[in-house]
Amino acid sequence: MAEEKLPTRAQDFSEWYNQLVLKAQLADYAPVRGCMIVRPYGWALWENIQQALDGRFKATGHQNVAFPLLIPKSFIEKEKHHVEGFSPELAVVTIGGGEELAEPLILRPTSETIIGHMWSKWIQSYRDLPVLMNQWNSVVRWELRTKLFLRTLEFYWQEGHTAHATQPEAMEETRQMLDIYTDFAVNDAAIPVIPGAKSDAEKFAGADITYSIEAMMGDGKALQAGTSHFLGQNFAQAFEVKYLDHMGVQQHCWTTSWGLSTRFIGAIIMVHGDDQGLVLPPKLAPYQVVIVPIFKNDEEKAAVLGAAKELKTQLAKAKIRVTLDEREGQSPGWKFNDWEMRGVPVRVELGPKDVAKQSAVVARRDRPGREGKISAPLADLPVTIERLLGEIHLSMYDKALAFRRSNTHATATYDEFKKAVETGFAFAGWCGRGDCEEKIKEETRATMRCIPVDATDVLGSGGAVASGKCVYCGTEAKERAIFARAY
Amino acid sequence: MAEEKLPTRAQDFSEWYNQLVLKAQLADYAPVRGCMIVRPYGWALWENIQQALDGRFKATGHQNVAFPLLIPKSFIEKEKHHVEGFSPELAVVTIGGGEELAEPLILRPTSETIIGHMWSKWIQSYRDLPVLMNQWNSVVRWELRTKLFLRTLEFYWQEGHTAHATQPEAMEETRQMLDIYTDFAVNDAAIPVIPGAKSDAEKFAGADITYSIEAMMGDGKALQAGTSHFLGQNFAQAFEVKYLDHMGVQQHCWTTSWGLSTRFIGAIIMVHGDDQGLVLPPKLAPYQVVIVPIFKNDEEKAAVLGAAKELKTQLAKAKIRVTLDEREGQSPGWKFNDWEMRGVPVRVELGPKDVAKQSAVVARRDRPGREGKISAPLADLPVTIERLLGEIHLSMYDKALAFRRSNTHATATYDEFKKAVETGFAFAGWCGRGDCEEKIKEETRATMRCIPVDATDVLGSGGAVASGKCVYCGTEAKERAIFARAY
Repeated sequence: MAEEKLPTRAQDFSEWYNQLVLKAQLADYAPVRGCMIVRPYGWALWENIQQALDGRFKATGHQNVAFPLLIPKSFIEKEKHHVEGFSPELAVVTIGGGEELAEPLILRPTSETIIGHMWSKWIQSYRDLPVLMNQWNSVVRWELRTKLFLRTLEFYWQEGHTAHATQPEAMEETRQMLDIYTDFAVNDAAIPVIPGAKSDAEKFAGADITYSIEAMMGDGKALQAGTSHFLGQNFAQAFEVKYLDHMGVQQHCWTTSWGLSTRFIGAIIMVHGDDQGLVLPPKLAPYQVVIVPIFKNDEEKAAVLGAAKELKTQLAKAKIRVTLDEREGQSPGWKFNDWEMRGVPVRVELGPKDVAKQSAVVARRDRPGREGKISAPLADLPVTIERLLGEIHLSMYDKALAFRRSNTHATATYDEFKKAVETGFAFAGWCGRGDCEEKIKEETRATMRCIPVDATDVLGSGGAVASGKCVYCGTEAKERAIFARAY
Repeated sequence: MAEEKLPTRAQDFSEWYNQLVLKAQLADYAPVRGCMIVRPYGWALWENIQQALDGRFKATGHQNVAFPLLIPKSFIEKEKHHVEGFSPELAVVTIGGGEELAEPLILRPTSETIIGHMWSKWIQSYRDLPVLMNQWNSVVRWELRTKLFLRTLEFYWQEGHTAHATQPEAMEETRQMLDIYTDFAVNDAAIPVIPGAKSDAEKFAGADITYSIEAMMGDGKALQAGTSHFLGQNFAQAFEVKYLDHMGVQQHCWTTSWGLSTRFIGAIIMVHGDDQGLVLPPKLAPYQVVIVPIFKNDEEKAAVLGAAKELKTQLAKAKIRVTLDEREGQSPGWKFNDWEMRGVPVRVELGPKDVAKQSAVVARRDRPGREGKISAPLADLPVTIERLLGEIHLSMYDKALAFRRSNTHATATYDEFKKAVETGFAFAGWCGRGDCEEKIKEETRATMRCIPVDATDVLGSGGAVASGKCVYCGTEAKERAIFARAY
């Protein structure tokens, strides 16, 4: 596993990513082109993401449900932008139980249509509103260029769907979910994100407004890490989702949808990873601590393993996720490298001298080498490590934010702009027209990532504001937008 | 919702079930024939089932993973019994991204084949064993006759898959998982089950031995509520899952698989439900307690709702799942009926007189009417209800066990047998031959449910043991088996 070295990120970022996903056993390629297998270490990370988000969804009144995988093909055709966006990506079931189906069925690429269909039956009156639903499932989109976690034919996600009586309520929900994604990214994944609105060209097929959170990867490219859509009455009209209001008048509902997927794991890898491998944020890491025992003979082994097991019990009692590496036939050095590659936030090294002194060496993954090592009494470790995990989280966040800000440039001229998107984000004035956006994309491969909700946050307190002119056509800027090459 | 009465179980058990699933808003029919939508109340029940099982799986060393939905059609053909069993039930994707696929893909009906394929890459040496995996997902089987939860085209389940170095280890795992299902059924769902081995005719396509847990429904029919398969080396040979043993010799692995699905929700409904509706086991109920406030005017309302909210807070603090029914425009009586139909184990009635006395009326769902009501001081309710939930669990289990035993008959003659399977289980001698089993099925519609692991448990301490002759052909019985009509 850890024997062959990864390429460095500077050598080949893309290959560093591909090899790391496999070596860390997060995922593997499935026999069907473009599909992935999420292995135990990757799924444990996803389960922690699920738990962190699900708690936030439930605390804001959402309930989980399960709508089916199979959707009549005709459903997708009812909302005109939706069908344009998703038709090219559909997987179609034409045979069931050995017979040709009368109507082909599609595998859900997303569930707005079937949910709209059912809401039209369930929702009658204002008393039934709001409807606040979420589901954890997988969806299928027939992508041509795939990459593990970032873009796969089948991917795992949650899709939230809500229906409201009024436009402002639906808008409030859309923004609330954007805030929840931001809060999760910052406080659980230690990933600084820029929440903002997408352009018409980049928004969800069928949405009036799409918001996203955008993160900067270690190579300066952007990754859309979660989206929240204000769907207006588009789907409510297409599927006749109506309610009787307080006055007894029939009204169409206002709806939203929002999703975050396993591509977020790709963000965690590419934001925090270094040349040694993964660096996992403590709140989401499957193991927060690994204990590596060090011994040369059976006598030492007995003493060290005894102390290691006791320490594991004490840490587990303190609700710290801990594993003890008892693998035989591998040296401590090999194990250090292996767990470093797998990104465990804290390593505890425990040898016979440590046991004699009733102490241990504690090493931080985010600060390799001597700098990140301390020696601490065994009895204090639950408290020491608890505090350390908090410090690591903050330090990882600060580092990622500093990296993003130093690679984000307010650009007044198109030359500055072109230079900026070579290595990071450009923050630029934009006239708001699709043809300027399209030309920029053709000429620089950078897309409009978002119009930040809070422009002052993009560059930090000292940052210059982008010019008042469109960076492409020079006419008056309607927006200040982030442009970048993206995953 | 609760306005129209359910048919009684005696009138029409099947229709009672169908209407109850819809009225209690556990699930609804999807637009695609045979598919279902699991609504929030049903999914919350499933999440509690998941949590109860997942904890047991992880405590026994299993790790969750995610294998893809799409499987090359050729995979299913590699194990000869497997293909015979599953071919008629397949859903096939023939179009992806607008183009005809070179090889059709099937939607997984179960994942032994794709997991076998990947294990052949991942497993090299005895050091890699055992591999203990589980996944929570949905699978698709093209069933012709469907019924919500019991048999749907797509259903939700967990599928465990393990690989071992030796036959005894794999057998031990198979039995361990059977024990875990039994423990879950008894201690979380209050459902008495008979664990036992299936006949060759009824076992999983590709298994050497299939064990199941069998439960008796309220109409005396059997329901297979979970299965654990010893797969021998069948899949390991078909997919070349091999390892190098301690002596450096290549060996095939021994594998198992085991699953429990949303059909278990059907069992909960049909074991515990009564003519008023659901009766949910306390450990799995989405809400363990509902508080129904009673008032006639605004003054009473203020006092009662204040006390009700405080009580809700206190119960939630004691980790009791509680809801307060504040719906306007519905009488307390209507609410009582509605929550009775939805099976909430404990109802707290709180009116102005109760608040004045600082007490409340507590009603048990499993004992309707005066008999199940007590009055208790508000301050004691967290403790009182905690204890009461435990009592309700035991009482529900005892009732279901008594029902099963009183409807299970040791039958020595075929006449007795035919009479027994009209209303319940027959426990009978069986020669072990498939043609007797087949004739019995043709003539009585009863199938061989299982050969109980513990024959003495079937009828309880006082029960007679079945005859030493095959109930059909009269030759010497090899087995004592349970026969019943089944879902």
